[in-house]
Amino acid sequence: MNPVNKLVLLGTGLIGGSFALALKRARLVNEVVGVGRSMSNLERAIELKVIDSASLDAASAVQGADLVMLGTPVGQMGALMQQIAPHLAPDCIVTDGGSTKQDVVALYRQHLPQQLAHCIPGHPIAGSDLSGASAAQYGLYEGRRVVLTALPENTQESIARVRALWEACGAVVHELSAEEHDGIFACVSHVPHLLAFSYMNAVLDRDNADRCLDFAATGFRDFTRIAGSHPEMWRDITLANRDAILRDLNANRARLDELIALVESTDADALTTFIDRASKARSKWGKPGG
Amino acid sequence: MNPVNKLVLLGTGLIGGSFALALKRARLVNEVVGVGRSMSNLERAIELKVIDSASLDAASAVQGADLVMLGTPVGQMGALMQQIAPHLAPDCIVTDGGSTKQDVVALYRQHLPQQLAHCIPGHPIAGSDLSGASAAQYGLYEGRRVVLTALPENTQESIARVRALWEACGAVVHELSAEEHDGIFACVSHVPHLLAFSYMNAVLDRDNADRCLDFAATGFRDFTRIAGSHPEMWRDITLANRDAILRDLNANRARLDELIALVESTDADALTTFIDRASKARSKWGKPGG
Repeated sequence: MNPVNKLVLLGTGLIGGSFALALKRARLVNEVVGVGRSMSNLERAIELKVIDSASLDAASAVQGADLVMLGTPVGQMGALMQQIAPHLAPDCIVTDGGSTKQDVVALYRQHLPQQLAHCIPGHPIAGSDLSGASAAQYGLYEGRRVVLTALPENTQESIARVRALWEACGAVVHELSAEEHDGIFACVSHVPHLLAFSYMNAVLDRDNADRCLDFAATGFRDFTRIAGSHPEMWRDITLANRDAILRDLNANRARLDELIALVESTDADALTTFIDRASKARSKWGKPGG
Repeated sequence: MNPVNKLVLLGTGLIGGSFALALKRARLVNEVVGVGRSMSNLERAIELKVIDSASLDAASAVQGADLVMLGTPVGQMGALMQQIAPHLAPDCIVTDGGSTKQDVVALYRQHLPQQLAHCIPGHPIAGSDLSGASAAQYGLYEGRRVVLTALPENTQESIARVRALWEACGAVVHELSAEEHDGIFACVSHVPHLLAFSYMNAVLDRDNADRCLDFAATGFRDFTRIAGSHPEMWRDITLANRDAILRDLNANRARLDELIALVESTDADALTTFIDRASKARSKWGKPGG
């Protein structure tokens, strides 16, 4: 496989930085330029050899690039696409690491209509509470999944190129429609985060919240870990994937209503059935570390 | 401190077995008798040196004991108390490891009214998905909390004795009222379990449940870990602590309704405030491993 000649990271954090490190280790990139909003993070990225040079200006940075990776929160992607549009080489591939895909697809269509053959929306499933260049790590994508939600306008060659690069990072690549992607991740990622935020707020509402938190142990720790996630990022995801999230939140409310009715009625058998269905499915799921 | 001469474990699993192992290591027990419902688990317990001898008959086993530990699910404790009542030495201390306390207190009052001076209800906060004698481990209680919900009838001497034995196991002992205990653990343990069961059921309701579970990753893994817990045990806990649990489940429903309204209204600022409150509190909580 030919190496990427010039990779530009728009956003130099966990997602883009780890992508660059993995490609460097595979000797599949000659030059990495990092773009960011503050020099301090970019300097750190140079120090850590995540990038070779840095820029605060996306427009000039992408000139001559053959691959651009959008690794910022989705909320910043539209403005970046707008800035780079006039400066992209005609065959430059643009991809991203956004957690929602229907909205990112809409941004590509709005801001990069001339480039659509080579805009390959992606979502590496490797979230973390960490952020910034210091969070970038070799091997982050080893064995992880990456979902590509290709556009009908994409060339097979560009899709295959992005797929091959991710596979070189150790990732397992899946192709889904953007709609299917957003439905699945509303269910298994976005709604659990929102339910964890909601539960934490209910704890904090209690008169003896501090005492409760003081006695909280390992079950609480794991159940609420994702409640510590980044507020602006999760606000953006929630608004971006609103319809799918609302469907799942309402389904969860219906199940909670059913549970409350079961507890009120003290119907032991129905309660056992309710718990047993969940427990069996979770035990069967049991992935490594699960 | 004088060692326990004869400790009887009613239920020879994680809680009682680990208590016996810790006391043995501290040279604070001379003889441990394990009582259970099947010989296979008891034989395993002898093999693992968790107990010195085994019995299927609680009544004869407790004769001559100076300490009895009820380490079964709460649902079995009433019958066991009834069986042992006529056979306890007058100064024998009876304690337990039940996850709910108001109901266990009621069982002590019902079945052991002559023994109340020495019945010390307890709850070691060291849950696990594991069970059986094989789950017993040295050091399980090291640095863990144990809550005692002493009765007004208890002698100070018996409370101090149980406290000192737990401290010898490495535990940090707290005293709460049974009502306060049950309110706190409804909030930080029982309701999270029920919410995790409810969420899993909502996932399973989906047409594409298998595909969702296939893409579920680390956030899902941690959020749902407790959904794999034992159905009968959690049915019993739910029914035993019904009132406190219903209060918290309803508080969670109110917060979920609020969240759904925020997402429907796409009120970005209010959504940020909602998430931020939860995220700050969870980050501040951050215990080791959290």
